[in-house]
Amino acid sequence: MTRAHEMLASSPAPIPGVDVGLLASVAQSAFDCAQACTACANACLAEPSVADLVRCIRRNLHCADVCDATGRLVSRQESPELARAILEACLIACRLCAEECGAHAEMMTHCRICAEACRSCADACQELLAALPR
Amino acid sequence: MTRAHEMLASSPAPIPGVDVGLLASVAQSAFDCAQACTACANACLAEPSVADLVRCIRRNLHCADVCDATGRLVSRQESPELARAILEACLIACRLCAEECGAHAEMMTHCRICAEACRSCADACQELLAALPR
Amino acid sequence: MTRAHEMLASSPAPIPGVDVGLLASVAQSAFDCAQACTACANACLAEPSVADLVRCIRRNLHCADVCDATGRLVSRQESPELARAILEACLIACRLCAEECGAHAEMMTHCRICAEACRSCADACQELLAALPR
Amino acid sequence: MTRAHEMLASSPAPIPGVDVGLLASVAQSAFDCAQACTACANACLAEPSVADLVRCIRRNLHCADVCDATGRLVSRQESPELARAILEACLIACRLCAEECGAHAEMMTHCRICAEACRSCADACQELLAALPR
Repeated sequence: MTRAHEMLASSPAPIPGVDVGLLASVAQSAFDCAQACTACANACLAEPSVADLVRCIRRNLHCADVCDATGRLVSRQESPELARAILEACLIACRLCAEECGAHAEMMTHCRICAEACRSCADACQELLAALPR
Repeated sequence: MTRAHEMLASSPAPIPGVDVGLLASVAQSAFDCAQACTACANACLAEPSVADLVRCIRRNLHCADVCDATGRLVSRQESPELARAILEACLIACRLCAEECGAHAEMMTHCRICAEACRSCADACQELLAALPR
Repeated sequence: MTRAHEMLASSPAPIPGVDVGLLASVAQSAFDCAQACTACANACLAEPSVADLVRCIRRNLHCADVCDATGRLVSRQESPELARAILEACLIACRLCAEECGAHAEMMTHCRICAEACRSCADACQELLAALPR
Repeated sequence: MTRAHEMLASSPAPIPGVDVGLLASVAQSAFDCAQACTACANACLAEPSVADLVRCIRRNLHCADVCDATGRLVSRQESPELARAILEACLIACRLCAEECGAHAEMMTHCRICAEACRSCADACQELLAALPR
């Protein structure tokens, strides 16, 4: 059990009907993805080919910001309507970033690892979206 | 013209077909709303009736986080699909917070002012949403 | 009176001995500076000379993150020891960014305006630092 | 090796003379601590004794914000002067939160786990501070 899972499982106010493991999985992977995207943007800035990586850097920065907000919101376990909206934004940000980083995964290790972090987070968001009460 | 407007107007890469004044208006009102919501959560924590203000504090915290991410994303002017998703999340967060703060606006000045900040931000989000290219 | 000032003045728990106008001035200028730095990093990324602007972009990103945390902490009015530490970090981040943006202020409007935002925020941090109880 | 470590090790621009494992350890523990503190604030808000937990909630919120900024800055590997300042702020925020959460660790599981996360992050900050070039 991750620490995020232990933290959310110990709250006296879980969201009724939502599996706390799914929430914890988004919380953990969103903060991990924010770290990876922040580091990837910085590594891209240090590449000699930085001028060709502008779109990648922008998507890294977007994804870090949306993942950060998502990690915080799901750690606060409330309002399915708002949870749904931020998870949808996070899913888009992660997919855009995974697509762009994935395209240079063979040339740059940081883009390969970052794309994996984005895909993990997108998967966790999608699983939680499917489980949220309508 | 606000500084946010000047900043966005001076970028060499505007989003084609999107009025920079609308972007700047969301950027400015989202960061202003993040400040108001952070301060309102803190003021609610200092009220003798804090036990009755838990929902208000949560919505303040959610709204501050989503506004922060929104202010950053619109300041970065890219990806209409992601912009749309984060603006929709921001609109929901601002409305939930305005509704809750608005309900105690007569008793607490900080909730009255915070509700105004949330409504301004919601209005700016909605105007930009209506103007985004589909 | 700015909205940040009204918000902080309406809190039932001010920091004893600290002028609320100084706190509000840091809160306002820190969030404004976070917006300016985020937009400046993005505009730099869109410049044909992006490869020469890497240091500027990094300082913009650092400054946006530290300003964001500072704006939140001073909006929460507590712990002079922590306030002092974050204000000192914010002062350094703003000075580094103002120095770098200031160096290309004549060539790029976004860097000129961003340097102004950083200097305003640095000034506000310094004034509050001088007024904090030891 | 954590993903944060792999990310930072793959950057073409490490800080000269700073062990990348120490940077990665701060990056990882700062984002983990931001998650724990966000979740702990929320769990405290749900406790029947919320009125007695106001100081704990404030320190949780402060700590989450400073950890978030710290995790981002160390993921961006630059400026030892700024790194030092934000690490010192993070150390203070983590200690204040660990102290407060630690005081109710026996009564509330979320406070016990959160205090551990804060202490881990404080330790990592202190180790990196000791290793930074002067």
